Amino acid sequence: MPLVRCLPVTAPPPSLKDNTADLDRLKRALREGLGQGPLVVPWRWAGRVAANFREAGFSGAAIVNDGEGRLELVDFLPRPPAVLPGLALDLGTTYLEATLLDLASGRRLARGHHLNGQIRFGDDILSRIHEAGQGAGLSELQGAVIGSINELATGLARQAGIVPQEVRALSVAGNPTMIHLFLGLDPHHLCREPYIPLVNAPDLTAAWELNLALHPAAPVYVLPGVGSYFGGDLIAGILASGLDQGEKTAMLIDVGTNAEVVLGNRDWLIACAGAAGPALEGGVARMGMRAGPGAIEHLDIDPATLAISWQTVDNQPPRGLCGSGIIDLVAGLYLGRVIDQRGKFRPGADPRRLRRGESGLSYVVVPGEEAADGRAVILEQADLDALMRSKAAMYAILSTLAAQVGVDFAELSRICVAGAFGRHIDPRRAITLGMLPDLPLSVYQPIGNSSLAGAELTLASGAARSRSLQIMRSITYVELNVNQEFMLRFSGAKFIPHTNHALFPSVPVPG
Amino acid sequence: MPLVRCLPVTAPPPSLKDNTADLDRLKRALREGLGQGPLVVPWRWAGRVAANFREAGFSGAAIVNDGEGRLELVDFLPRPPAVLPGLALDLGTTYLEATLLDLASGRRLARGHHLNGQIRFGDDILSRIHEAGQGAGLSELQGAVIGSINELATGLARQAGIVPQEVRALSVAGNPTMIHLFLGLDPHHLCREPYIPLVNAPDLTAAWELNLALHPAAPVYVLPGVGSYFGGDLIAGILASGLDQGEKTAMLIDVGTNAEVVLGNRDWLIACAGAAGPALEGGVARMGMRAGPGAIEHLDIDPATLAISWQTVDNQPPRGLCGSGIIDLVAGLYLGRVIDQRGKFRPGADPRRLRRGESGLSYVVVPGEEAADGRAVILEQADLDALMRSKAAMYAILSTLAAQVGVDFAELSRICVAGAFGRHIDPRRAITLGMLPDLPLSVYQPIGNSSLAGAELTLASGAARSRSLQIMRSITYVELNVNQEFMLRFSGAKFIPHTNHALFPSVPVPG
Repeated sequence: MPLVRCLPVTAPPPSLKDNTADLDRLKRALREGLGQGPLVVPWRWAGRVAANFREAGFSGAAIVNDGEGRLELVDFLPRPPAVLPGLALDLGTTYLEATLLDLASGRRLARGHHLNGQIRFGDDILSRIHEAGQGAGLSELQGAVIGSINELATGLARQAGIVPQEVRALSVAGNPTMIHLFLGLDPHHLCREPYIPLVNAPDLTAAWELNLALHPAAPVYVLPGVGSYFGGDLIAGILASGLDQGEKTAMLIDVGTNAEVVLGNRDWLIACAGAAGPALEGGVARMGMRAGPGAIEHLDIDPATLAISWQTVDNQPPRGLCGSGIIDLVAGLYLGRVIDQRGKFRPGADPRRLRRGESGLSYVVVPGEEAADGRAVILEQADLDALMRSKAAMYAILSTLAAQVGVDFAELSRICVAGAFGRHIDPRRAITLGMLPDLPLSVYQPIGNSSLAGAELTLASGAARSRSLQIMRSITYVELNVNQEFMLRFSGAKFIPHTNHALFPSVPVPG
Repeated sequence: MPLVRCLPVTAPPPSLKDNTADLDRLKRALREGLGQGPLVVPWRWAGRVAANFREAGFSGAAIVNDGEGRLELVDFLPRPPAVLPGLALDLGTTYLEATLLDLASGRRLARGHHLNGQIRFGDDILSRIHEAGQGAGLSELQGAVIGSINELATGLARQAGIVPQEVRALSVAGNPTMIHLFLGLDPHHLCREPYIPLVNAPDLTAAWELNLALHPAAPVYVLPGVGSYFGGDLIAGILASGLDQGEKTAMLIDVGTNAEVVLGNRDWLIACAGAAGPALEGGVARMGMRAGPGAIEHLDIDPATLAISWQTVDNQPPRGLCGSGIIDLVAGLYLGRVIDQRGKFRPGADPRRLRRGESGLSYVVVPGEEAADGRAVILEQADLDALMRSKAAMYAILSTLAAQVGVDFAELSRICVAGAFGRHIDPRRAITLGMLPDLPLSVYQPIGNSSLAGAELTLASGAARSRSLQIMRSITYVELNVNQEFMLRFSGAKFIPHTNHALFPSVPVPG
């Protein structure tokens, strides 16, 4: 059952013999199709619903929200609208991404993204939490993100040929901090031991209460999270990947600021998160960047000639390297023996491109004359070191998690890779680096923005909303920061592909 | 279960091993005593509940409202309050009467009444409905009654040594028009054929939504009504009298502007209303008045000497006659043969008190020198005629209703008489007039303000709230305005005690 439904209804008109009140008459007629659960008309909408019902001649379309433990009759229209729009939102720290769905047909009406207006209060979660503690900071942060959502909703509505006030429901997936700020709840304790959110599973609210520019009675559903680190965005990913429903064990990898990993099947789920992300998201390497125009997203080095070919996003002149580009580059450098097993440049390995500067050796990926703004794209040893840490962390996370439950990588039916990382990465190259397990490439499945996909599912289905709570209750979260085994595995993974090459039989020994 | 409860709760404190969020932790601890139904924290109270819970060290008292189909956790206190006050309100067209109950102990904390501030917009229901249709009339009328409730609540709170913001729940019984205006709902159709209310059974709302000066999260329950004439005040009366639970058939009589009568038992209920009230409520007779200070409430005429003795409310000098006083007077005049069977003065029957004026004969109840302000209390023929119509209407209503279901008066185990009418009337005199059936006096039971008593019951008990809905659904309402049999019975009852004296064997034939 979607968060909101439009139900055609015709009631017998009142008479001296049937003087039931308007709202009770409407409820009585609706009940015939709805069964016996509680059906309420919230006071705020009662007058309008009754007036519309009467004006429409006691026949038309009722708008019914799926409340918690009850249905809420919130509007009445003379006839069913052409579409019943609902908004699914991935509420990210940096970007909001959303789709507008027609909940009557399931059709997608529009899709888009928008910068999170909170960015002016700081880039990362910690600075937002700090800001929320200053004076009116919390309400300013809430206002900023609500404003951004309203702008995004307005844009999507325009694409769909409607106004945002016609949007009848909202489902939101985000990390715990973003959810607290969205709801105007104090995030203070999220970043302080023992890291306790104010709420994991917020109950439904309505658009008018949050000043959202949607239909005021639109129910607002927020996907639940677990603890401070494991947000509704990841539960959305589990929903979208179907990890919680599979007979066979599978894995979900979502790389953002952190790498978040879930392992499991329909009987159990285990999850952890770790700092494997920055180098991969483009946040650490000097020439790193997001996968925007001019980012080198694919790159190839001929192991014999060391000749480079590359491809940029939108075919723009190269400006830098996004995560997948860095992985391709370092894998190519390794197979061409320009770097060694420890990820260090070999002096003299490629005299045309290796240069020695103040900070040691660096590698010219694209010379200035071919690059955007004449600024060469360079990989420095420090960037390489950062990538080595990231890739080692990633493999250590995956192998620690699997070891916790005694699962061998070879048992995995699928590894779903979410987001831009999943969309752009070439699993072959990641395996070469020893970042991802050495499995058949078909095991790796890019699943796109799974946070948004999960928000769409919960918008459209009560079963998905129940699943999200079930996942929240059943998932086991492993804390890696205090995990000794993780540190050992991390050290072992700081080689290409690994100190134990036998784990990566498909990766050739260079040269 | 009361509308609101205070539940002691202690949760284990959070730790790195148990990082459940504050609200989820609180819900989890509460669930142990509450079972598995939906338990929600409405968004509006979530931040405050979580902050209080944390500040109290994860132990204290949760305030839980009984919502429709779910429980709502709306506040958290470090320890249970000394009392858990709830307000029961009889919302009358003229007066508001209320009690403040401690819902924890069931103890009554305070009781009082207040004029309905809407009175400045007109005395009666029709003028209020008219006024509501003018410009901002509806919101002015709503504001007026909310203001009066707030003043009444403030006074009662003061009596109880608290502030009104500590009042955690409200239950309201009133006629359909008063309920519509209280909720700010348009009463337009209540007085226009086919007389359809906007709502019979309003769903719960909260104090803050209605600008009530109680605790903002206090749930506001409104007793349901049936159609336009049969209000929650009368359903409250049925609850209070227990008519819907009796094995034996009983009757409830509530006389206000209309006489409202219910007949039934645990298997069936039938009701009707009719215009029997005005003369009895003191609204018609020239010297009629409410049962306030100086109103003659009891009166006796010696049938031999025709000497009068009387008693006034508060023993003040007489100002007029309230309903019970008029009934005593007319019964005495009949037994003393000052009036005849048709209710007409007999010329010369009591020369000391009967006077002839421009409008015919009149009777001096209290001469000017004994009365308040030197103004004699007089009964005119027109007053007598009005009483005769009222008493005939009352008997016709009762007998028509009983005949509808084939019940003989003698089968009635109880006749509950509500309100001031029940409190003051002497059933013996009413039987003499032929107003009430000739039954043993013990059958007649005054039950006081049953509308308020029903509001108290629904405030304190979910079972009573369920009963009120059950009564609403099961009761049959008989429309007397279009009832031919009623008109015949009305004509037959326009004699004292009746055209068929055999119906009143206990009433002596005078002189």
